[in-house]
Amino acid sequence: MGKKSLAVGIDIGGTKTAFGIVNKEGSLLRKGCMPTTGHLSIEAYILALKAELSAWITAAGPEQIAGLGVGAPNANFYTGEIKEAVNLPWKGTINLVALLEEAFGYPTVVTNDANAAALGEMHYGAARSMKDFVVITLGTGLGSGIVANGQLIYGHDGFAGELGHIIAVRGGRRCGCGRQGCLERYVSATGIVATAKEWLEEGNSGSVLSGMDPLTAKDIHEAAVQGDELAKKLFSYTGQVLGETLADVVAITSPEAFIFFGGLSGAGDLLLQPAKAAMEENLLHVYRDKVKFLTSALPAADAAILGASALVWT
Amino acid sequence: MGKKSLAVGIDIGGTKTAFGIVNKEGSLLRKGCMPTTGHLSIEAYILALKAELSAWITAAGPEQIAGLGVGAPNANFYTGEIKEAVNLPWKGTINLVALLEEAFGYPTVVTNDANAAALGEMHYGAARSMKDFVVITLGTGLGSGIVANGQLIYGHDGFAGELGHIIAVRGGRRCGCGRQGCLERYVSATGIVATAKEWLEEGNSGSVLSGMDPLTAKDIHEAAVQGDELAKKLFSYTGQVLGETLADVVAITSPEAFIFFGGLSGAGDLLLQPAKAAMEENLLHVYRDKVKFLTSALPAADAAILGASALVWT
Repeated sequence: MGKKSLAVGIDIGGTKTAFGIVNKEGSLLRKGCMPTTGHLSIEAYILALKAELSAWITAAGPEQIAGLGVGAPNANFYTGEIKEAVNLPWKGTINLVALLEEAFGYPTVVTNDANAAALGEMHYGAARSMKDFVVITLGTGLGSGIVANGQLIYGHDGFAGELGHIIAVRGGRRCGCGRQGCLERYVSATGIVATAKEWLEEGNSGSVLSGMDPLTAKDIHEAAVQGDELAKKLFSYTGQVLGETLADVVAITSPEAFIFFGGLSGAGDLLLQPAKAAMEENLLHVYRDKVKFLTSALPAADAAILGASALVWT
Repeated sequence: MGKKSLAVGIDIGGTKTAFGIVNKEGSLLRKGCMPTTGHLSIEAYILALKAELSAWITAAGPEQIAGLGVGAPNANFYTGEIKEAVNLPWKGTINLVALLEEAFGYPTVVTNDANAAALGEMHYGAARSMKDFVVITLGTGLGSGIVANGQLIYGHDGFAGELGHIIAVRGGRRCGCGRQGCLERYVSATGIVATAKEWLEEGNSGSVLSGMDPLTAKDIHEAAVQGDELAKKLFSYTGQVLGETLADVVAITSPEAFIFFGGLSGAGDLLLQPAKAAMEENLLHVYRDKVKFLTSALPAADAAILGASALVWT
């Protein structure tokens, strides 16, 4: 391989930061992680990150590194900033690109974690031959990265692709964003637990879930696998809300596939089969039987680093 | 100007076909129209169109023509075909690009009328400096053309951008597409009339609209201008349904502006003020006070030809 064949991928999460050195084929040559929290300032955090990475960069050959790609909550591709990220320890506006370029001396690109996941699938994963697709990350919340014409849609302000905040149920559950009925209040680990608690309050004492406190999405998944009727219905309902909303998304960007990633997507057909059925039922006829449902083709533990590194190649 | 500085724009509507020769600055050098209906076959229609245009092309200089751009209902950019267009006289699948290229000998590009309108605004109109915007055509139905990263979103199959068929009211009015609650059943000339008829059946005999048969969107507009309370409420409600749906669209593509075009958008603030208010109220905070509402900057009579011609330059 010639020069500039490697990228540094950095995934900044609320508790830990994962990083690695990735080649153009998507092989992770080195990887590691460190706490995101516990540093005195953002500058101290970046010094710690540099201390972790410097020896690897020297070993890989500094002239081989094309740049740094960073996925972080609320990170804006256009401005290079993180603003008021509630899940990160630094308040206000952080100019992440400027700080990283100063510390490392490489061109640096940032975006949010769901957009990074979409780039990861496009460069190394399930969307390698696709120009139009949507990645949906199902974790505590619901994130999305939308690709059209082979490019991520950042929108005018860098904040496009917030499918989790489409109003799925008008007048529905209160969301942390201040509005009601957002998709992620229903379709996420938090969402399915909220639905379960509502339904358990209404009765359903026959379910194995009725005694559980705390109750997690994993508990619901396990109960459904064991045949618990309430748990199975919880996945059907959650899938239905997801599918109805995805039908509207198809009418906008007409993707080749939805690619699901993250904790709750591990429930597989329990969630995705009712979601696909509800989507098809709600699709305009020209779109029917065309849109694939896929799960991520990236190793779960490395996907965030791979996605972040892909930013360097776009 | 050098060679290939002109484009032929053709807008095929259900009753008439408008066409013209347009330069790169968006000036319409010649324009005309002919009936879409009354021809024995699609081949006869194309011969008639060629007869209309040939003398102009000769006069303009055949070597100056870069190509033909065509806007037509259901026309697919990727395949060059029109399939089962209910508003056109030809049934089945028509390979429009192949027929026009054979007849005229110029490269030909087709898309639907709303996408053509979006390209017209981007090249010659209200979106000249924009890379991310959505054009919404409000006529008998509701069409849309979505631009992101400076490119039209055609989607995987060429049918992206059907905002009129987002489900705005779940379980709502039956739509011609076979589903219920589609946006265009509420927000279009047909939609506002349907709402008026529903409301008039429930009473409201004090309105000037109560005696009217037939009742048109124009009647409702005139009544609202004259201060009729029911007519004003009809626009408020129609605007509210539009605004709520646009808030969801913003969460997907985050456009700089919505640009409104077509008959019902002539109602201006009567419709767009409540629509903007409802959109802002339903927007996720990161998008608030950022998205412009504009009306088309193209002359209404020529916009469809200009939009179609812009296909040649993309």
